[in-house]
Amino acid sequence: MQMANLRINAERFNATLQSTCSKWGALAAPSTGMCRLTLSQEDKEARDWLVGNIFAIRKGADATKKKPIGMGSHMDTQPAGGRYDGILGVQAALEVLRTLHDNNVQTHCPVALVDWTNEEGARFAGAMMASGVWSTKSSTPLQACWDVRDNDAILMKTALEDIGYLGSTPCDYRENGLECHFELHIEQGPLLERANKSVGVVTSVQGMKWYAIRVTGIEGHSGTTPMCDRSDALVTASRLIAAVRDAALTTGLGVATVGVINSDTSSQATIPAGVDFIIDIRCSTDEMVDQLASAIFKAFDAITMEEGNGTAYEIKRTWGLPESQFHQTCIDSVRASALKEVNNDQIMDMKSKAGHDSAWTSRVCPTSMIFVPSKDGISHNPNEYTSPEHCALGAQILLQSVLHYDEQVHKGVY
Amino acid sequence: MQMANLRINAERFNATLQSTCSKWGALAAPSTGMCRLTLSQEDKEARDWLVGNIFAIRKGADATKKKPIGMGSHMDTQPAGGRYDGILGVQAALEVLRTLHDNNVQTHCPVALVDWTNEEGARFAGAMMASGVWSTKSSTPLQACWDVRDNDAILMKTALEDIGYLGSTPCDYRENGLECHFELHIEQGPLLERANKSVGVVTSVQGMKWYAIRVTGIEGHSGTTPMCDRSDALVTASRLIAAVRDAALTTGLGVATVGVINSDTSSQATIPAGVDFIIDIRCSTDEMVDQLASAIFKAFDAITMEEGNGTAYEIKRTWGLPESQFHQTCIDSVRASALKEVNNDQIMDMKSKAGHDSAWTSRVCPTSMIFVPSKDGISHNPNEYTSPEHCALGAQILLQSVLHYDEQVHKGVY
Repeated sequence: MQMANLRINAERFNATLQSTCSKWGALAAPSTGMCRLTLSQEDKEARDWLVGNIFAIRKGADATKKKPIGMGSHMDTQPAGGRYDGILGVQAALEVLRTLHDNNVQTHCPVALVDWTNEEGARFAGAMMASGVWSTKSSTPLQACWDVRDNDAILMKTALEDIGYLGSTPCDYRENGLECHFELHIEQGPLLERANKSVGVVTSVQGMKWYAIRVTGIEGHSGTTPMCDRSDALVTASRLIAAVRDAALTTGLGVATVGVINSDTSSQATIPAGVDFIIDIRCSTDEMVDQLASAIFKAFDAITMEEGNGTAYEIKRTWGLPESQFHQTCIDSVRASALKEVNNDQIMDMKSKAGHDSAWTSRVCPTSMIFVPSKDGISHNPNEYTSPEHCALGAQILLQSVLHYDEQVHKGVY
Repeated sequence: MQMANLRINAERFNATLQSTCSKWGALAAPSTGMCRLTLSQEDKEARDWLVGNIFAIRKGADATKKKPIGMGSHMDTQPAGGRYDGILGVQAALEVLRTLHDNNVQTHCPVALVDWTNEEGARFAGAMMASGVWSTKSSTPLQACWDVRDNDAILMKTALEDIGYLGSTPCDYRENGLECHFELHIEQGPLLERANKSVGVVTSVQGMKWYAIRVTGIEGHSGTTPMCDRSDALVTASRLIAAVRDAALTTGLGVATVGVINSDTSSQATIPAGVDFIIDIRCSTDEMVDQLASAIFKAFDAITMEEGNGTAYEIKRTWGLPESQFHQTCIDSVRASALKEVNNDQIMDMKSKAGHDSAWTSRVCPTSMIFVPSKDGISHNPNEYTSPEHCALGAQILLQSVLHYDEQVHKGVY
């Protein structure tokens, strides 16, 4: 059999994707949404079913090639997420392994499926956590990740132990490396759909930074404190949050979002004295991220000066992912594989606007991603949807990308 | 001994006030703030020490007078409150009982100390809860109060049982009535201090209404959703919260506060689809409350129309306390008693801008209040402070108000 003709089993693949989502972490019907928080019982059961570990390696023929070609993504979801973000990439990797097995394909390099832990950062703060640790390039090393607590004050390390996935294999690319890393993912935005394309060849991931803001004022009684005597932290925080959106729109530099807000007080009758929120800024380049951040904080200064009524704010950089350039060899493998399935006019080169585990792997091994369309651009939402045809198309391109890369390695081209 | 010369023991009174605050619910030193949430262990221990029940009645001489003259306030505090709001009034009532006892005073009517449960509404939503139930005029009857849950989902009824204060005495003025109700309280605002006065004779309590607002948008990914495609519930909520303050300032009708805000999402990488907040509106008259509410909601409509990006909001009336007029007989007792202690230029008639248990008692029995100054007008804050001299002055006026009212009842004047 010609490797170029090797095809995934689209029906099996889509059926497995849907049935495992229904079993582990499905939101109540009729929603097809997901809540599979990292290291939860649902995540454990999905992992148990999958392989029993996050690296599932299929041997290759060439004993000199120790490092597998990686196919990675993540199986955890947002608290109200969908069935495709991350899950699609891992399921597609499984389908690739099944296809290789069913067809007795002997690759030169080993081939590995990788389920990266805590990509979402929704239960334990810090997105793309395990791939960041593995790459050793993240500012949060292993022990610091283990020390993160969820909202119930459970340590990440305890959660790993509780579901039996603490493991002893080093999470470090130098000891447990990959030849390269491919990731199939949904776009999570509207660009492919709007351009009427089927496949995105991903060339980079945009830069992003998170800033924790704390606004402080003076607590007071909601009935007895005259309006003109108030230092209301929530009013100021509100003006700042509106300014975050306004600055992103005005400058056109990228996107800026406040997803989380917390007020110190839980009393309706108290003027809030402390409010925390987090700004998520993402732009095509790191320089643009910094420019947008500057524009936002300039607006903050003007607001607190003119309308702050004695409130103040502090900024703390909490997390960031520098702009990531993917590797030309992997990009070429994806494009060549896509062209086998669809015409060139169905393919679009694109930057990823979301962070992905591939952003970290790209720092230590050749990496690229395959994007398939998201209906209405919706993601992080139970209504997230990608058609079975697009899922299968992505899985097929993932298979062929692996085989193409494997062939190039064998030929000594890469 | 002439009753008019009867004096409280100021030293004992202030020492008791401070030592019981230090024992039950004190925030960590050097703060002198309090966290004595209703029905908490600290609240239980303070109650146990006090009397073992919320009504402590001292018998009178006249057997035909069944209903006691009430001296009420509350011992619970805000999560970060002070040592005077509520606590002063109950401690002063205790000092009055001690003074009557020490001097073997025989009043005509019985005299009662009342510690009203859950005045703050900080742990179980719904301020002035027990006095509202007792008056039977609140829109939240007993069973509905029992059914309220705190943030840990503990039922109010369970909390009452847990600390041993569920009791069997009916909380109903028709079965367990008061001849009248006096309440000593700190002003909680800056007016007395600014006017350089020592005593406020309180003639009414301003009207107040709470509105729960829910803003809804569409959840989305913070990286991949273009700014112009977003329906961000938190951005809209922020614009509305700023508008609440702006409307109160522009109209000058009263005060409006947002103390509590909650977003559905806890993920930094998700555009919030649902945000809840509560507006607290207070004005001199019920009509002005409605006018200010109208101005706020008109601004809300303009904002969601012009800048709402497809978000929407809903309003729910959750709680209210209509404007309360106090009774002339009680007001006269307070003023006559104040004039025994200070010159007329130290006394000021005033409306209460905060809600109090007296607002509910005034609906079913003659009621008035005594205000003493709050340093810098600060309350609902650990820095809340009233001098020992002003505390003792208030307690002395409370004692004389009770004796004055008792005498008038005996003479058949009231």
